[in-house]
Amino acid sequence: MSGRIASDAKTANVADAPRIAAPALAAFIKRALEAAGLRSDDAKVVADLMVEADLRGSDTHGVIRLPLYLRRLKAGGINPRPDIRIVQERPATALVDGDNGIGHLVMRFAAMTAIEKAKGAGVAWVGARMSNHAGPAALYAMMPLAHDMIGLYLAVGSNNHLPPWGSTENLLGTNPIAIAVPAEEEPPIVLDMAPTVAAFGKVRLKMQRREEIPVGWMIGRDGKPLTDPKRAEQGLLLPIGDYKGYGLSLMTGLLAGTLNQAAFGRDVVDFVKEQGKAANTGHAIVAVSVEAFAPAAAFKRQVDAAIRAMRGAQRLPGVERIWLPGEQSHLKRQDRAQNGIPMPKPLRESLETAARDLGIAPLA
Amino acid sequence: MSGRIASDAKTANVADAPRIAAPALAAFIKRALEAAGLRSDDAKVVADLMVEADLRGSDTHGVIRLPLYLRRLKAGGINPRPDIRIVQERPATALVDGDNGIGHLVMRFAAMTAIEKAKGAGVAWVGARMSNHAGPAALYAMMPLAHDMIGLYLAVGSNNHLPPWGSTENLLGTNPIAIAVPAEEEPPIVLDMAPTVAAFGKVRLKMQRREEIPVGWMIGRDGKPLTDPKRAEQGLLLPIGDYKGYGLSLMTGLLAGTLNQAAFGRDVVDFVKEQGKAANTGHAIVAVSVEAFAPAAAFKRQVDAAIRAMRGAQRLPGVERIWLPGEQSHLKRQDRAQNGIPMPKPLRESLETAARDLGIAPLA
Repeated sequence: MSGRIASDAKTANVADAPRIAAPALAAFIKRALEAAGLRSDDAKVVADLMVEADLRGSDTHGVIRLPLYLRRLKAGGINPRPDIRIVQERPATALVDGDNGIGHLVMRFAAMTAIEKAKGAGVAWVGARMSNHAGPAALYAMMPLAHDMIGLYLAVGSNNHLPPWGSTENLLGTNPIAIAVPAEEEPPIVLDMAPTVAAFGKVRLKMQRREEIPVGWMIGRDGKPLTDPKRAEQGLLLPIGDYKGYGLSLMTGLLAGTLNQAAFGRDVVDFVKEQGKAANTGHAIVAVSVEAFAPAAAFKRQVDAAIRAMRGAQRLPGVERIWLPGEQSHLKRQDRAQNGIPMPKPLRESLETAARDLGIAPLA
Repeated sequence: MSGRIASDAKTANVADAPRIAAPALAAFIKRALEAAGLRSDDAKVVADLMVEADLRGSDTHGVIRLPLYLRRLKAGGINPRPDIRIVQERPATALVDGDNGIGHLVMRFAAMTAIEKAKGAGVAWVGARMSNHAGPAALYAMMPLAHDMIGLYLAVGSNNHLPPWGSTENLLGTNPIAIAVPAEEEPPIVLDMAPTVAAFGKVRLKMQRREEIPVGWMIGRDGKPLTDPKRAEQGLLLPIGDYKGYGLSLMTGLLAGTLNQAAFGRDVVDFVKEQGKAANTGHAIVAVSVEAFAPAAAFKRQVDAAIRAMRGAQRLPGVERIWLPGEQSHLKRQDRAQNGIPMPKPLRESLETAARDLGIAPLA
C-alpha cells in the first residue's frame, strides 16, 4: 500500500531534471503572457499561480500548460483582457462571469469575492462561468486559509474522459474536488482529487513513455481492462468506488457547471483539441469562516491533534509513513522553493519555442 | 458491471418478506417513542423520517434501528426531551446544539434553519453538535429540494471502521456525504455515499449470514484481504480510491465533527456498544438557493436534460440500464408507498419484543 500512496508517475522524469529558481520562471511566464496580450498585473497574477502549482509538485498543471494557454490565446479561444465581473449576487453568494479570461484570473477573483462575503455572512458560495482551465484545484481551495477559513473548490474538467457508470460514452470529466482546512503548527490539510482511479494526465504520461497502463485505470468499449497505451485515446477512465465516483463527477459537474450556466456533459469543449473555441468552464468556490462555528485558534489546535493522530497511528506491515492529504505537496514546496523547480528537457524546449514565437527573452 | 450497480445485499432477504403499510409502521414507531419519553410531536417527526428511510429502501437505516434507539433512550445515552437550539449564528451560518436528542430531530431543525437562512443569503451552512444517529444522509440533503434548493449533508459516522490509508487503526468512520439536486419532470438526483467500498452494514449482513466477505471490501491487520465473516469485527474497511476515500472521510469528519466541537477520531463513541454515553455526533447541512445563480425552472429543465443524457448514453455489453444516483431509491419508494414496507420475520420479532418491553400495542 505505501508504494501506491507515494507513487507519482512524474517522479522518475522530474527527479534528475535541472532546476530553475521560482522567481526566474515566474518572470518568464509573465513576459510570455504580456506578449500574448495580457495586462501586466494580470500576467503577474497568472504567472505566480502557475509557479505555485509547480512549487507544490503539480507538474501536469503548472508551467507545462503555458504553451497550450498561449496557443489558445493566439487562436482566440481565450480572451487576454477579460472584464471579469459579478453578474448576480446575494449576501452570501455571487455568480461571476469570467468573460473568457484565463481561469486563474477568474478563480482568484471568485475566491477573493467568497472570502470577503464569508467575513460577514459566515459562509459564501461563488460560482463562475465563462472561465477556463485554472491549474490545480488546491490553489483556490487554499486561498481562504490565510483568513482562518476552510475552502472548498469544485470544477468541471477541461475534457471528458469518464462515462456514466455502465456506459461507453465519455460524458463526464475528471471533475476535481478540493478541500483545504487550516491547522496551527502543522501544514494545512489539503485534499485535491479527481473522482477517477487515475487522472488522465497519468494516462498521457504512460502514452508518451509507451508503458502499459495498469489494470484498474481504464477499460475499453468492450468493458475489458485497457492496458495498451496506443489505445488509450479510445479508453474510458474508471471512477473511484465504481458508481460512487460517477456520482461525484456528475454532482461536481452540475454544481460547478450547470448551476452557473457553464458547460457540462456533451457541451464541454475539449480544451486541448478545440483551441479557438470558448470553453465556458465552470467552477465553484466556497469559503467557510471557522470563527462562525468555533474560536479559530482552538479549532486549528484540534486540527493539529487530528493530523498527529493520523500520522502516529499504527501502520500496516511495510508502510513507512502515514501521510495527510496535501502533506507531500507541502514538502515538495519546501524543497522546490529552496532548490528550484525541475525543468526537464522537453519542457524547457517547449518554453524556448514559445519564447521564439513571441519574440521575448528566453528562460534564464 | 450492471450486477454491481444493482447489487443490494439486502434484496434477497427483503424481497419475499411480508409488507406493512407505511402509516401503520409510522404509528407504531410514534407509540414506541412516546412510551420512551419523547414529546408527541417530536415522536411523530422521528417516526415519519424513519419510515421515509424504509420507503426509500434504506433497510439498514430505518425502523431496523428503532430497538437500538430505544435501548439508548432507556440507558440515558439519548435525551428524550432535548432543548435543540442555535448557539451561534451569522447571516448564512448557524451552530446547533442538539442537547443529545435523537439525530432526526436535530438534523430536521438544522435543515430547516439552513433553508430559512438560504432564502435570504443565497446559501447557508448549519453545523450540529451533541446530536445522534439520524438515519440515512439522503433524508436531510433532500429537505431543501422543495424550496428549489440544492442540499449537501455531511456526518460523522456512529462508529469507526476505517483507518487512515496505510494504518491498522480504525480512527475514521464511514462518514457519509449526500448531495441532492432538484429536477423538473425527473426525480431529483440524490447521491448518498460512504467513502468506503462497502458500508459496514453490508459486512454485518455477511456476518449474520456467515457468507464470505468479497475481496476488496476489507483487509486484516496484516494488510491481506479479510474474507472470513467470523473475523470481520477485527477487520479494516477499504476506502474508495485508496487514499482518496481516506481523504474524504477525514475531511467530512473535520467539517461535520471538529468544526462543530462534536466527536471525531478517537473521541467517537460507538453508538452500538456504548449505549449509556452521549455520542456527541456532528453533522453539517448546506442549502444552496438555485435562484441565487439561475432561474430555477430553467436550471431544473437542464438537470432533466442531464439525467436523460446519462440514462440514454451508449451502454457497455451486458448493461441493461444506466442509473442516476438516487433513482433506485425513488423507484423503491413508489413501490413501497403502494405495496407496503417489507417486514422480515427477525425485524418484526425485534419490534414485538420492543412493544412488550414498553407495554404498548404491537405492530398491527
